[in-house]
Amino acid sequence: MSAPNAAAMERLAAAEPVLVDVVPARAAFPEGDGMLLLHSGPPIAVADLPGCTRGAIAAIAIDEGWADSPEAALALLDAGDIALAPGHDRGVVAPVCGVVGPSSPVFVVRNEAADKVAYCPLNEGRGAVARYGVYEPRVLEQLRWLRTDLAPLLGRLLRSAGGLALVPLLSEALHMGDDLHNRTKAFTAALYRELSLRGTAAGLLPATTAPALEFVARSDVFGVAAVMAACKAMLLALEGVPGSSVVTTMAQNGHEFGIRVAGLPGRWFTAPAPRVEGVIQPPWKDDEAALGIGDSVITECVGFGGFATVGAPAIYRYIGGDIGRAREIAEAMYGITLAEDRRFAIPVIGYRGVASGIDAALVAAGEVTPIANAGMSHKDAGVGQIGAGYVVTPRQPFADAVAALEAAGRSAGRLAEEPSART
Amino acid sequence: MSAPNAAAMERLAAAEPVLVDVVPARAAFPEGDGMLLLHSGPPIAVADLPGCTRGAIAAIAIDEGWADSPEAALALLDAGDIALAPGHDRGVVAPVCGVVGPSSPVFVVRNEAADKVAYCPLNEGRGAVARYGVYEPRVLEQLRWLRTDLAPLLGRLLRSAGGLALVPLLSEALHMGDDLHNRTKAFTAALYRELSLRGTAAGLLPATTAPALEFVARSDVFGVAAVMAACKAMLLALEGVPGSSVVTTMAQNGHEFGIRVAGLPGRWFTAPAPRVEGVIQPPWKDDEAALGIGDSVITECVGFGGFATVGAPAIYRYIGGDIGRAREIAEAMYGITLAEDRRFAIPVIGYRGVASGIDAALVAAGEVTPIANAGMSHKDAGVGQIGAGYVVTPRQPFADAVAALEAAGRSAGRLAEEPSART
Repeated sequence: MSAPNAAAMERLAAAEPVLVDVVPARAAFPEGDGMLLLHSGPPIAVADLPGCTRGAIAAIAIDEGWADSPEAALALLDAGDIALAPGHDRGVVAPVCGVVGPSSPVFVVRNEAADKVAYCPLNEGRGAVARYGVYEPRVLEQLRWLRTDLAPLLGRLLRSAGGLALVPLLSEALHMGDDLHNRTKAFTAALYRELSLRGTAAGLLPATTAPALEFVARSDVFGVAAVMAACKAMLLALEGVPGSSVVTTMAQNGHEFGIRVAGLPGRWFTAPAPRVEGVIQPPWKDDEAALGIGDSVITECVGFGGFATVGAPAIYRYIGGDIGRAREIAEAMYGITLAEDRRFAIPVIGYRGVASGIDAALVAAGEVTPIANAGMSHKDAGVGQIGAGYVVTPRQPFADAVAALEAAGRSAGRLAEEPSART
Repeated sequence: MSAPNAAAMERLAAAEPVLVDVVPARAAFPEGDGMLLLHSGPPIAVADLPGCTRGAIAAIAIDEGWADSPEAALALLDAGDIALAPGHDRGVVAPVCGVVGPSSPVFVVRNEAADKVAYCPLNEGRGAVARYGVYEPRVLEQLRWLRTDLAPLLGRLLRSAGGLALVPLLSEALHMGDDLHNRTKAFTAALYRELSLRGTAAGLLPATTAPALEFVARSDVFGVAAVMAACKAMLLALEGVPGSSVVTTMAQNGHEFGIRVAGLPGRWFTAPAPRVEGVIQPPWKDDEAALGIGDSVITECVGFGGFATVGAPAIYRYIGGDIGRAREIAEAMYGITLAEDRRFAIPVIGYRGVASGIDAALVAAGEVTPIANAGMSHKDAGVGQIGAGYVVTPRQPFADAVAALEAAGRSAGRLAEEPSART
């Protein structure tokens, strides 16, 4: 392993994500942003937005009080009055369409080893949800309830607990059949356990909180938002290690797939978004699915999700249904990553640590690209989730990142050799 | 499948275990029992009791108030003043030494499909515990706390909830890496979730209950007692189906292993208890382990435990460490059972239902006997658990049961053919 990559991987192995709070996303929206919404994936022009993301923008703009109808919200968008930016530029990750406004309630995860903070919006549950582009009245009502009821309670519980160290909970969940992306049922159960135990002890759980607790405890996906924020907070620590080709971000916006590497913080390398393979719920058809979309592929950068599906038999069906295929994928991912993080062991493959730290150089030089889990959104606004599965990511962004690292290295080398040039 | 076995298996497939209460075991101790203690496995003479069971008897006799020291308790036992009976004779199952007194707090599971009730004592947690024969002061203190603090709370929660249907929780746990015998972490989490949610909604969980909730939620074995009672309540429904060779009980007392079959309720067929194979914690040695002991092998009769270990990667280490061996065992168990209960699917083997309903005739006629999970107790009093693993059960009791069924069949045949003989 190159010295820069070794340095980056040390930071990943040392990461200590702690779930500290739930707050409005305003912390990621400096004064003067106006009507700005964050979205998943690399930067995107309004004209290129998939229909589902337009639906999500409508829902969140209404939730923010910027518009009182989907039509009015989209008119603001198309007129340029609502601006867009990638959440990744502000430490915010969000699943699927990934639309986040300043009022959206977000989990806050601090990487204690590096003083980095990341955010991810609270999960709305399954069914009709804004993150898949639905904006009907019950979705708006649910968004309001998350903001006014659930978020303040979770914030109180987390602050009262002094935060929750996530490494033990992530590790526990991998022993219980989670891949920590498409399946977070065990992690969600652990999160519920910790919050409810501490809340009971602190007298913070009167009977009126039962519906909020029930929402968390009965969800099998609620925890994924905390996992995503944890992964982002862990990977933020790697940004800016000169020359490192470790992938710190993978993300999709339904139009493009993009990556960033540790040695070139802030620079996106993109290619057209891949198709989502997997299982579509009837009556939906292949050609109705949006292309790969969402920031949840941040989990694969840490070694979860598609890289750990072998440990999650309950979702083998998304990759063809058996452990043989799951093992093959895991093996392939070990071939493009730099470490096995023993803090996150997968019992079914002999307690091997997850395949952690994608090396863009290994991807660029070989046949294998990262395989990531994925929810499948209908491509249009107002429909919602139609399936789940995985994406095979395109190679080009990894090759482009490696070329850019080499160019930056040459440039830095010239500067180092000719110090007079800088004076 | 024979008509009697088909009838028995219908009852197993229809079973609906519901966790209804926690009460003192007194319900299983009719008036006039005097100083009677129940134990695990088939009947046993005092002289044959393993040391660990003598330790457990000391602990429980003190907890009952019958003696004020281990020595005094064992003097009562050796003088014949404390009587013993198998818990199985009274619908009570208990792990390891399995000593239960009339004050011992027990889970109550009702099989709603058959109006059968079974009991299993609350789990004391890990470490120094009476069920492994330890009787030191902190064990006695813990027994008292279970009886006076935890049990009443759990009883209130369960009665307030109107009982908990267990089939969905058992099924959920199998999707999350439990085998429901040596590993019940996911089931325990589900139990905690249901009790805490209902308790919060009903206002039954003031801050003073936090230690009790914490005890349940942080245990990875607490749930096994509810699983055992559920399995016993399910199998009780099969007892008395004439001619059926379905195994309704397997149990061990550290001296003998015994079974009962549906067609001959109440009759034990026994052989010397097998060794426990598996993983011993240092510094303990093989020859310090008790032989197979405990009623928890009731779980294998439903298809859990050793029969489902393939679905529990976190405990593969007890059977040699990999999925290959786990698959072999599962395959072998499908060969001696009569059904695959699709209510209890194992995702890692293609959602196959657990191997359910051991047919004593298949065991007697073949090479394969049931392989059951097992905790490993030190053989002496006062030491505790020294490992975990599995037992390969002996064939003879199955052969004897089949012979006895045939004899009973001939006898019934004669009676049927010669009705005059009965008048």
